[in-house]
Amino acid sequence: MSKEKSVKKQREALCEDLLEAQFELQKANLGPVLLLVSGNDLAGKAELIYTFYDWLDNRYLNTRAFTLPQGVERKMPRLWRYWRSLPPAGTLGFYLGSWYHQPLIRLSRGQLSEKHFTAEMAQITRFENQLVAEGVGLLKLWLHLDDDHTQNYPPHQQQQQYDSLAMREWGEFSTTEYSAVRQAADRMSELTSSAIAPWIRVPSSDPDQRDLQVGRLLLQAMEHQLQGKGLRPDQRDWQPSKHDRLAELDYDCALKKDVYKRELAHYQQQLRDLIRHPAFAKGSLLLVFEGADAAGKGGTIRRITRCLDPRILRVHGTRAPTDEERSQPYLLRFWRRIPAPGRVVVFDRSYYGRVLVERVEGFCSELRWQQAYAEINDFEAQLHKAGTQVIKFWLAITPQEQLSRFEAREKTPTKRYKLTDEDWRNREKWPDYVNAMNDMVENTATAHAPWHVIPATDKRYARIQALRIVCETLQKRLKQS
Amino acid sequence: MSKEKSVKKQREALCEDLLEAQFELQKANLGPVLLLVSGNDLAGKAELIYTFYDWLDNRYLNTRAFTLPQGVERKMPRLWRYWRSLPPAGTLGFYLGSWYHQPLIRLSRGQLSEKHFTAEMAQITRFENQLVAEGVGLLKLWLHLDDDHTQNYPPHQQQQQYDSLAMREWGEFSTTEYSAVRQAADRMSELTSSAIAPWIRVPSSDPDQRDLQVGRLLLQAMEHQLQGKGLRPDQRDWQPSKHDRLAELDYDCALKKDVYKRELAHYQQQLRDLIRHPAFAKGSLLLVFEGADAAGKGGTIRRITRCLDPRILRVHGTRAPTDEERSQPYLLRFWRRIPAPGRVVVFDRSYYGRVLVERVEGFCSELRWQQAYAEINDFEAQLHKAGTQVIKFWLAITPQEQLSRFEAREKTPTKRYKLTDEDWRNREKWPDYVNAMNDMVENTATAHAPWHVIPATDKRYARIQALRIVCETLQKRLKQS
Repeated sequence: MSKEKSVKKQREALCEDLLEAQFELQKANLGPVLLLVSGNDLAGKAELIYTFYDWLDNRYLNTRAFTLPQGVERKMPRLWRYWRSLPPAGTLGFYLGSWYHQPLIRLSRGQLSEKHFTAEMAQITRFENQLVAEGVGLLKLWLHLDDDHTQNYPPHQQQQQYDSLAMREWGEFSTTEYSAVRQAADRMSELTSSAIAPWIRVPSSDPDQRDLQVGRLLLQAMEHQLQGKGLRPDQRDWQPSKHDRLAELDYDCALKKDVYKRELAHYQQQLRDLIRHPAFAKGSLLLVFEGADAAGKGGTIRRITRCLDPRILRVHGTRAPTDEERSQPYLLRFWRRIPAPGRVVVFDRSYYGRVLVERVEGFCSELRWQQAYAEINDFEAQLHKAGTQVIKFWLAITPQEQLSRFEAREKTPTKRYKLTDEDWRNREKWPDYVNAMNDMVENTATAHAPWHVIPATDKRYARIQALRIVCETLQKRLKQS
Repeated sequence: MSKEKSVKKQREALCEDLLEAQFELQKANLGPVLLLVSGNDLAGKAELIYTFYDWLDNRYLNTRAFTLPQGVERKMPRLWRYWRSLPPAGTLGFYLGSWYHQPLIRLSRGQLSEKHFTAEMAQITRFENQLVAEGVGLLKLWLHLDDDHTQNYPPHQQQQQYDSLAMREWGEFSTTEYSAVRQAADRMSELTSSAIAPWIRVPSSDPDQRDLQVGRLLLQAMEHQLQGKGLRPDQRDWQPSKHDRLAELDYDCALKKDVYKRELAHYQQQLRDLIRHPAFAKGSLLLVFEGADAAGKGGTIRRITRCLDPRILRVHGTRAPTDEERSQPYLLRFWRRIPAPGRVVVFDRSYYGRVLVERVEGFCSELRWQQAYAEINDFEAQLHKAGTQVIKFWLAITPQEQLSRFEAREKTPTKRYKLTDEDWRNREKWPDYVNAMNDMVENTATAHAPWHVIPATDKRYARIQALRIVCETLQKRLKQS
């Protein structure tokens, strides 16, 4: 059999397997599987992707190509644009310019210090680990050409075919700087080749063999998804809390009505002024409210949002994820909702659900909620770095107080709707929630995103405390800017 | 009882009713209800919205304020930004600058002719009719002040409270041009007050009464949603087709393999060149593929997409809508996917599903699919106007041909996945689909977005036809530009 015929036969068999795996992946709503395609400009990154558009079902393919961040992207956390454009489950994503692209370019051009490059690679590793832990498949390919080939490649025939596609535009790197890029790439590979997402070097001098090899790697990656066989990170970094913060609170704190009214007016005016401060628009504000049912989150939030221009404000009530959201990494729906500069976002319940309700109710594995502390800290650190002030509140009531509020709600016809069977069921797990709350505060209270645990038996007291804390935090922040 | 006490009592009762209705709306996933708040700058548009943020559950509120279109918005159909930012079902949407804002400003400043203003108002009426027909509630409010009040308003106390919020920024119109605005607004109200979405004038000299009145209107609108009592447009504009286009085709059309190969190379090269033409990037391309199962849509699409840079391409496979999509106007998911300038979008099945599968399977009411022809024509006309070339294909096979393809698929292990029970069931309704197809072509073939019905017994023939038509259409278009 001629070499050509053998290649054709292999290709046809592979193609059928790939189509079937693609169909199964789609049906099972698993993945997505992401292919990061990097390498020498002449190694055929573009052709490779064309090949797969030819082989596969185009409906379940996504291609992403990121160049320099544009517009608001420059003011958001660096990984934001990758998070929000993650392809949906059941599909494949090809990345021509991935999250490695900018750091690699900048390192090879000497625009990034080794130290910063290392820090960015560590950030990327945490990002990738989180994706993989959440069921995303990752295939990181470096298309490699020997030096002999970089001069003559692509062969004449290929050249002709792709010339008209303005191949130059595909180039990540100019040929002249390629030796510097190669050095940078070696460093990148060293720093980010983990067991779960290694860089794979694909010899690319023979396009047919290159495409076949990548096809086989892709098939394997899809099969791993389907069989649930892929390696998952197992590192967890947390410690159980040793004391009960909720037991330490003074639940008798209260404000008289006239004091409340005076303080409310005072802090609301202060908050209005702070939000109008020109420096505020450079950053943004994220308020997180957690606490037991009937702790008074809604009322407290309203006292704050009343001071805010509705155009810059968004209050998100976090509920059980939709089916679509459930098939995505759990932080994604929060990444999608972080505030742009000058904006305020309030989460009425939040991503902390992972270490609260999801932990207590067993909606996620023990491994995953134990890993979530570090993931959430990382998320908030990225927000902080990009200029978002994160302030977190826990409104604390006693089980007795909750009971009397539930009973009051039951008696008030117009408030009965607020009470569901679930609320009563949750009460039975009160000690579990207390435990989860303490572990949460222990592991996620940071200097830049502290927890404020407020006794909320007296609603007036709780509201004023929250308002005061928001004002004081903003004041401090604006002074620094 | 003092006036103040009476207002307070009314407010409290209204507030409870509103909260309950809001909860029910959210639970039933109905709506959204949109409140368009327009009127005199001093009439308290902002305060009104603040009031509702104070009264209602903030989690289910959205505020939108549109000023001049920004960036890519300027190159997309005018209504695109309103479509894509429609609040989700179960929520309320407040609009400070709605789709009326720009035309109103431009008319009052003499920047828009009466004729164009009228055309824009007609476009808006069609848009609103479609929203209402799809279950969206619309409340269009004009906050009105007597001339006496425009001088003195807002009263001192209010002024003080809102001054710090930079009230001026809320202003849609400067006070000096208000008489011109009022004239324009009268014209607007005349042209766009239909029975289903009338403009309601709200006297606003007394803020308490204003808020109470709007609260009651809002409550009524929510109750109409909940009771399914709102008026719906009942106009339908279509005619049944009188002849069978599918019976007229020559299903024997075929190409020999060598001719096919030559033509394929020819047209693919031509398409590559056309897409690279600098003028192409000014507009965009939308390809719609419809046809029976196994008609060869996927293979034809791949022959076209192979010529396209994956970065500018998106192929959407249209399937049954998700639960979330089902709660939204049916065209929304397609509005969200229209191509930006320089881009190509391919729909493998499309919004025509409404007048095909949804009609045949009874997934939508007779009234709604009969109204869909005009809605779709309107959608495509807006795309055309904004520079998107729409090309629509029906790949036609006979039921016998389909049967033999199904049987072939059953015999090929790796193609069996393509065949589902649903495919077999659909076959039983062949005459209904033929009927629906003919009505569709009869009612939606337009000069700027024609249907191309291609006999596809011979796959080669069909692929070349489709490629040729895309090339010729683009060629013609680029020559004109």
